[in-house]
Amino acid sequence: MDLRPRGLPRIGIVGGGQLAKMTAQAAHPLGCSVRVLERQPEFPADLCDTDTVLGDWDDPAVLGVLATDVDVVTLENELVDAGALEAVAARGALVLPSPATMHVTQDKLLQKRRLAAAGLPVPAFRDAPTRAALDAAAADLGLPVVVKRRRGGYDGRGNATARDAAGLDRAWERLGADARGLYVEVFVPFVAEAAAIVVRGRDGGVVSYPVVETVNADHVCREVVAPGRFDPALAARAADVARAAVAAVDGVGAFGVEMFVGRDGEVLVNELAPRVHNTGHYTIEGCTCSQFENHLRAVLGWPLGSTALRAPAAAMVNLLGAGPGTGEPHGLARALAVEGAHVHVYGKTRSERGRKMGHVTALGATPEAALATAREAAGRIRFGEAT
Amino acid sequence: MDLRPRGLPRIGIVGGGQLAKMTAQAAHPLGCSVRVLERQPEFPADLCDTDTVLGDWDDPAVLGVLATDVDVVTLENELVDAGALEAVAARGALVLPSPATMHVTQDKLLQKRRLAAAGLPVPAFRDAPTRAALDAAAADLGLPVVVKRRRGGYDGRGNATARDAAGLDRAWERLGADARGLYVEVFVPFVAEAAAIVVRGRDGGVVSYPVVETVNADHVCREVVAPGRFDPALAARAADVARAAVAAVDGVGAFGVEMFVGRDGEVLVNELAPRVHNTGHYTIEGCTCSQFENHLRAVLGWPLGSTALRAPAAAMVNLLGAGPGTGEPHGLARALAVEGAHVHVYGKTRSERGRKMGHVTALGATPEAALATAREAAGRIRFGEAT
Repeated sequence: MDLRPRGLPRIGIVGGGQLAKMTAQAAHPLGCSVRVLERQPEFPADLCDTDTVLGDWDDPAVLGVLATDVDVVTLENELVDAGALEAVAARGALVLPSPATMHVTQDKLLQKRRLAAAGLPVPAFRDAPTRAALDAAAADLGLPVVVKRRRGGYDGRGNATARDAAGLDRAWERLGADARGLYVEVFVPFVAEAAAIVVRGRDGGVVSYPVVETVNADHVCREVVAPGRFDPALAARAADVARAAVAAVDGVGAFGVEMFVGRDGEVLVNELAPRVHNTGHYTIEGCTCSQFENHLRAVLGWPLGSTALRAPAAAMVNLLGAGPGTGEPHGLARALAVEGAHVHVYGKTRSERGRKMGHVTALGATPEAALATAREAAGRIRFGEAT
Repeated sequence: MDLRPRGLPRIGIVGGGQLAKMTAQAAHPLGCSVRVLERQPEFPADLCDTDTVLGDWDDPAVLGVLATDVDVVTLENELVDAGALEAVAARGALVLPSPATMHVTQDKLLQKRRLAAAGLPVPAFRDAPTRAALDAAAADLGLPVVVKRRRGGYDGRGNATARDAAGLDRAWERLGADARGLYVEVFVPFVAEAAAIVVRGRDGGVVSYPVVETVNADHVCREVVAPGRFDPALAARAADVARAAVAAVDGVGAFGVEMFVGRDGEVLVNELAPRVHNTGHYTIEGCTCSQFENHLRAVLGWPLGSTALRAPAAAMVNLLGAGPGTGEPHGLARALAVEGAHVHVYGKTRSERGRKMGHVTALGATPEAALATAREAAGRIRFGEAT
């Protein structure tokens, strides 16, 4: 028997990684509880001893178990089969973002088409279902190009840059050839990468967080600086683009919008993630209402909270595994000695090289000051053995 | 099998109320997990699906189960029998605050004696083991006096003010006469109540949060304003007294120190609580490192975090049950519409008149602005039926 009072919702989350964990952390103060669906035991949300369903999240029957006794089902990744979500929604579960939104965002080609159709700036792109189509697209767009999987890629997995014909050969083979749906985009010689978290309510009301500057390496987010050190007009344009992008997919909840900034200040949407996003982790301490709390407010139909920064600047540095090993955070106490550093340890059981194991956020009077504090603490922690 | 990596501690907490829940909320971001001990199912920490031991916390065998596989045992209340804690510690468990500290703080007469012996300002007090002793003490101290139970009182339960001989009769009977250990204090005609959270590390290092102004009604905390609107010299003296009080009981962890401010600006220690405290809830959003995170850092032997305010001022308003009913927070969505209000719902299953069901915190440019925001949101939420 569920003894929770009415008005204290339970949220079902597909996936139990750090995004689900941080969503649970935002749910608990509001009196909400969380149930997660994961494939196997031992995952970050488990550290909160979260109520858990184990199983295959692409199986509508398993998703149906998650949906039982929760007020809304939401997601921490875009990999879940939209058809399975649709099947659960058809049986009466509230799924947000909607299966239709997941359908269009989890396929990057459909996503790009939707954004382009809404008049939003995106890099030129073409479908590449066959090798012949890839060659034709590359000739049409002009080399270099980026060959991408339509589905399942994240953190650069599923992307390959081709600078010549041999590069097209390699990309085609490496990404799975015609066994996988591929498409191709023009290579954007960006001068900076920007991102913004946009949260859209069930009523279409929208809030957005500051446009941030992101530093990626090997396609993985390393650092985020908020607000990004951009020309104000550019930042305003990027915020408008980000909000319009989420409206274009009829999104409900928090979305991460990654953008390229070109040499002449042009803003192009790189990718839209239908979920809370690494580029918004700084909002936990950095903003009045975090991306996680605002995601909950959105999917529960509650008023959205203030996205204002609590300090002139905030910075986040990811803690990536140095190599394989246990999930022990070596140097944690030394990192905690850095005044003003907020250390987040996701609680993963294993470290792997490049795996996201945690992050550090700091606030500051300037972006540089915040970044210096966050880097100082992050530099004192190591997961796994250097390889 | 416990698959948590080394370096990700688990903390055992005696009690599963809102203080344990908020401690768990601070533990999770650091990669720590929590196990609580409660008497019965359905309690706020349970909302986080916290690993739970059910049983009597005064039973050393039950405490021993809590202590299994945790790195440290700590407490969310001062009611636990210090002898039982001592028995568990004797079997090798790390218990912080120590059983010796709990022994002296959970008995308010011993606590007062310890503080007085350390030269700290306290209201004049006398033991009152018999009715004759009570009369003698009242004559000695001068009426009015406050008769108090030595143990088990909180939020004013266990206190009675006597203004004349008949009042002494009533107090004696109401508080349990010589079946309970009673003592008596002079009534302090305070002009304000102040409090400070002090956190003391295992190495004796200490940090303290701003001295706050507290507004109590019917002996229950209603509002907290940080920093308190006190003369700076008085606030500095109160902070010194609070730190010295925690050192006097050799405390480790977070302590709430409640003080009276007299007409001539004198500061007297009213009571020391060996735990995180209602007057420090504002630190979750209001300070760089909250009382809950600093409590964890202290008992784990980690460096203590910054107690600096994140804004010029913060205010907290308690959400007390209006009467009996379910724990449903009526008006929650309307309260969330108040910009800058941080609403905490503890998730208690039942409301009772005066029961602490949640709280609201707001930051502001001034104490008045923060208080106005917190009051506006708090006024929109109701638990239970007005009686």
